[in-house]
This record gives sequence, C-alpha cells and structure tokens, in this order.
Amino acid sequence: MTIAPPARVGMSLDEVDTPALLIDLDAFERNLDRMADAAAQLGVRLRAHAKTHKSPVIANMQIARGAIGQCCQKVGEAEILVAGGVADVLVSNQVIGASKIARLAGLARHATVRVCVDDANNIDDLAAAARQHGSCLSVLVEIDVGTGRCGVAPGAAAVALAQKIAAQDGLQFSGLQAYHGGAQHIRGFTERKAAIDHAISVTRDTIDQLAAVGLDCEIVGGAGTGTFRFEGASGIYTEIQAGSYVFMDADYGRNLDLDGAEGSEFEHSLFVLATVMSRTADDRVIVDGGLKTFAVDSGLPLVADHPDAIYVGASDEHGRLSVSGDARQIALGDRLRLIPGHCDPTVNLHDWYVGMRGDVVEAVWPVAARGALF
Amino acid sequence: MTIAPPARVGMSLDEVDTPALLIDLDAFERNLDRMADAAAQLGVRLRAHAKTHKSPVIANMQIARGAIGQCCQKVGEAEILVAGGVADVLVSNQVIGASKIARLAGLARHATVRVCVDDANNIDDLAAAARQHGSCLSVLVEIDVGTGRCGVAPGAAAVALAQKIAAQDGLQFSGLQAYHGGAQHIRGFTERKAAIDHAISVTRDTIDQLAAVGLDCEIVGGAGTGTFRFEGASGIYTEIQAGSYVFMDADYGRNLDLDGAEGSEFEHSLFVLATVMSRTADDRVIVDGGLKTFAVDSGLPLVADHPDAIYVGASDEHGRLSVSGDARQIALGDRLRLIPGHCDPTVNLHDWYVGMRGDVVEAVWPVAARGALF
Repeated sequence: MTIAPPARVGMSLDEVDTPALLIDLDAFERNLDRMADAAAQLGVRLRAHAKTHKSPVIANMQIARGAIGQCCQKVGEAEILVAGGVADVLVSNQVIGASKIARLAGLARHATVRVCVDDANNIDDLAAAARQHGSCLSVLVEIDVGTGRCGVAPGAAAVALAQKIAAQDGLQFSGLQAYHGGAQHIRGFTERKAAIDHAISVTRDTIDQLAAVGLDCEIVGGAGTGTFRFEGASGIYTEIQAGSYVFMDADYGRNLDLDGAEGSEFEHSLFVLATVMSRTADDRVIVDGGLKTFAVDSGLPLVADHPDAIYVGASDEHGRLSVSGDARQIALGDRLRLIPGHCDPTVNLHDWYVGMRGDVVEAVWPVAARGALF
Repeated sequence: MTIAPPARVGMSLDEVDTPALLIDLDAFERNLDRMADAAAQLGVRLRAHAKTHKSPVIANMQIARGAIGQCCQKVGEAEILVAGGVADVLVSNQVIGASKIARLAGLARHATVRVCVDDANNIDDLAAAARQHGSCLSVLVEIDVGTGRCGVAPGAAAVALAQKIAAQDGLQFSGLQAYHGGAQHIRGFTERKAAIDHAISVTRDTIDQLAAVGLDCEIVGGAGTGTFRFEGASGIYTEIQAGSYVFMDADYGRNLDLDGAEGSEFEHSLFVLATVMSRTADDRVIVDGGLKTFAVDSGLPLVADHPDAIYVGASDEHGRLSVSGDARQIALGDRLRLIPGHCDPTVNLHDWYVGMRGDVVEAVWPVAARGALF
C-alpha cells in the first residue's frame, strides 16, 4: 500500500502534514550546480549515486546538468531508474543469486547496465545470464582500496578477474570499481586525504598491471561526497560516484576542512518537518518524529532554526528535545525543521519528497525506489 | 510505488529473494497463544500494539485469540487498521493539528476510536472536530509514570483534564494511559519491577483522585512486552498494550529474569533472510542487508544458526560479519537468517512479510501501515 503524500502542490508550508521530508529546492539546485561545476573543473565524469535519493526525477536533474548516468546498490533500484528514463546505470555492488542476475541481464536489453564483481564464479553466472537474455553486461572489477568490505585485493587478483571477464561472451570488461567507503567520514582532512592517497596508489598500480596484459579501463570509479576532490584530481579516476551532496546531512557536516573547520561546500537541503505534539515540561519538547522518521545510525537529527533546542532522544514515533533560552518559547503545535543525521537511510523511511520553493510547495515527488532492497 | 514481494506462496525458502522479512509461523503462533493465555490468567484485556506489526492481518489474528482491539501511534495506522476490519483502535499518543484531528474524528464514524491527551487546548480541538463529524471520540488522559516523554503529571493535573473531557459534547472520558516506555528495556528484573511499582502507585493514586470527583476509568492502559506481567497483576491496569511479543527481538532478549538469566517467555519469530554477497577474506562475510534492512538503534542483528558468526558492522546495503570456527565455512551465495536488534523499526523498513511454515512459503502479507508516519 502506498501512503498518500503529506502535501499538495500550491500548499503553504504550514499546511504540510508532518512528519514530512522537505527539500529546500533553492539549496538543492545550488548543490546540483556546484557538483556539476566541480566535476567539470576536475575533468571527471559524474555518475551520481541514486542510493541517496532513490528518485528518477532527481537522477534526471543530475543528468540534465551533465552527469553521465547513475549508480545504485540494488537491482531493484536499477530497474526503477531505467523505467524512469536513465540510460546508463551501474550497480556499484555485487549481484548474487539466479533471480537477481536474470533481472539484471534482462534489464541490460533496455539500458546500459553495469555491475561490479569480486568472484570468479559470479562472472560465469553473469555471462550465462547475459547470453541467455541476448544482452551485454558491462563489468567492473571491484578492488578493496581500504574499506575492508567487498572487493578483491588490488593487483594480481583483480587482473585475473578482468581477464576472465574479457574472455566471456555476454560480458564487457569496463574497468575498476575503487570506492573507499570507509574514508568518507574520516573527520580530519589530512587523515581523509591520506586514505584516498593510498586508494589512488593501489588503483594506479592495478591499472598499470591491467595495461601490461592489454586491458584498458574505460571506467575507474569511486569517490563520495567526503572525498571526491581527491579522486577527481588523481588523474586516474574517470568517474565520481557522490550521492549525499544533493542533500547533505549532519554527519557529513562534521567532516573538517584543511583549516580544521566543520562544514561542507554543499548546503543542507533536506529537512524533516515535525510538529510539537507534547509540551508538558518547561525544558522538554516532544515532536512527532522518531526512529521511523529518522535513521539514527550516524547520530540524532539537528534542530534547524533553533540553536537552543537539542534533539536528545528518539523512540519509535517520538523525538525528545531539550530546550533552553529562546527555545523555551517553542509551543505545542509549532512546527520545526530537523536536519537528518544520515540522509540516505532517512530518505528510505519516507514515501514522498515535498519540494519547497520558499514557503510554497512546488513539487511532490515519490521516493520511487524506497524499500527496493533486492 | 509498492515494491513487489520477494516470494510467492508455495516457494521453498531457498527461492525467496533477499533480503526478506521472514515470519516463522509456528513460533509466531505460539507467541500469539502465549500472550492470549497470559492475559486471560492475569485477568486483563489485551489491546495489542500495532506499531510493531503494522498489519491488519496480524491484528485480526490477535483479536481472534481474544484481544479486544489494537493500539497504534499514528492516525494513518488507525485508518489502515479500521480499513482492515479492526473495530476498536486506540491511538496511544497525542494527535495534534487540524488535518490529523479531522481524520481521527471522521474515522470515529466507522469504528470505536480512542486517543490520548495531555493538553487542555487539544481537548477543545478534538471535541470541535468530533461534533463537526457527528462522531464520538473516546479519550484517555496520559500521565507520565516515569518515562519523561508525553503525559501530564499524575494526580491533580490529570484530574483537571479528565473533568474537561467529561464536560465536552463529542468526547467520552474513558480513563488513563499510563505506559512506562522507559521501563521496558531495563535489564535487571528488580529494577524493572521497581519502575513499574512506581507507575502502579502513582496511577492508583490518580484513579482514586478521579473517583473522588465521580470519574470512573473504564480503561487504565499501558504495559509492554518487557513489563506486562507487573501491570497485569496490579489489579488496576485493565488493558495491556504489548506489541513486540509477537516477534521478539535481540534487544528484548537481553532483559534478565528474576534469576538473572537472559531470555523471554516468547520466541524469536521474525528473521531477515540475507544472502552472502562477498567473500574475499577468510574471516569476513558480507551480506546484502545493512541500514536499509535493519534498524540498528538498539544494536546490530544477531546471526541465527551460526554461533561463530557475529554481525559487526552495517553500511547502507551491506552487513559485515566476523566469522571464526565453523562459520568460516559460510560461502558466497549462502543464505543466513538474522535476528533484528529492534523489531518495530525493522518491520517498518520492509513492504512484505514472508510467512514460512518450515521451509515452505505459506503466506505473503503486506506490511500495510509501513511508512504511515502521519
């Protein structure tokens, strides 16, 4: 059952039902423009990550500004992106199991579909499915550049997989996936840069080893919102896969720049609008958004517009704010904007975006791939 | 957009796509029976909490075993329960804002609808809406019995609200909401019981003060899976509102009994089936379920069936398991059952339950109120 949207186009902000996932469209569009400009200046392609927004509407706005396609984590997300008009999609992940592989191979009849591998048998399975469906899958070898999650070791193991891919009908060897997820939220600039310098070094070495056996990398992909300027300036990464930049979140806001200051070149454009639903103690405000409204894995939300209000506890459907100073004026029924701790899994809790132009609802977009887990 | 289900009835477990939310129907039905028996033995009514399961199908199974209705946290959940045939629903929460209050009052034409209050002006708003819709809302005064979230102080403040409710056309004063959410997960038996003893004491005093002004409590509601035996034996609570007992979760499993042992009288009946999607290091297994598959607010999932496998880290769509001993045999493509840390917000991440009878899919039920945030 799809939940009805909390707003209609033309409503004013004070008519939007809560909790609602708001996009500040002005800030959001500035973020889109900034990243498009940055990619152009760095001389790399942008393949923005749809796991953040889960929306073909937003994907197409990124592509209209120059992005060459999208990446995503799940076959179900890829299906929804292709159905929404995206022509080039990378599942930046391993796809395991006959059902998913069949769907991926079928989808490749309708768009350029790319996938990552870190296992030789998986290559056989992908190739068999592609041949069965009469399609071609573009395949990247994922190397572990420091995260310790998926991916084979850089160097010889990657070369062996690449050679196996290149030898298979139905598959095209397209290059390397060299994403360092673990580096994105390293707070210190120097430490974060050092992690990516290591990733660049081992990736360059692997590219050289591939070249030595006659295999070129059309794509060397990776990078996120926390590190894309390092990979983008490396000379070896061809695609950056940042996602969170469109919205930003509280956790990315805690990364430090070269001068040790918190912040980002992108703006918070994603908010949850919540209503004060209980106000029975002077220093406590209860809002109607908790664990089912915000992902709290990377910390609790921040309260926008009220520096004296701190979100201190979440239960399933309640948020508890500690208030002092001017924030003690917050009254029952007041509506507050909150900045999610982690944007990607927070978006995944909502069915609809409410796009605000100032105080007017301008757009209501489905979070089309919300819950696309497989 | 509703996501297609990961299984069809009649499939075997190894055909279910992953990640999928599984119910072990045998264990689940034993949990339903155990709580029905416990409520009967304690001599209290069961108003099971639908915020756990978000499913009219499960609500009706509880009611068929004697539950007198459901409670829920949101108007949207109440609408879905009533549409699914539930005749008596308590929104065990404050409902604030004209739009939500209108929906609540309209819904009260179609079922017995109850709601909690902790504010005098909110009583006026509820009454005006009920009169406008020609309906009657059953209203409970919520008292804060120790959680420090919603609710007025026990005693005089509650009596004043009750008198105001009783004086309003369109509203019926029905009693007290006296739920101690903060006590449910207190680990030690003695400390947990002490918290509820306090709640019982202040609730009894408030009941007495209400009686002194001629107001009877048809309903005194509260209690969760962690404490229901205390409230149920109190002689003053008339309804217990446990929800998690149907599924149990890892966090409730860490509560201690009188003898200091972990565990529960209920069984884990809810699992997430996940697939091993990467296996590139001997001591590391990567599965296809992370922050968008599991709520991690109350800890990471446990790995069922494999005591030597520990889920140690979640990213958006990956789970990282540390494996030793026999668990080193876990191979790429293997499928593992995981026990969520916190069942309620985990269920809310999924669109479908896959009900298993042994290794055969017997039922596929929508998580109908998933995402019903307002």
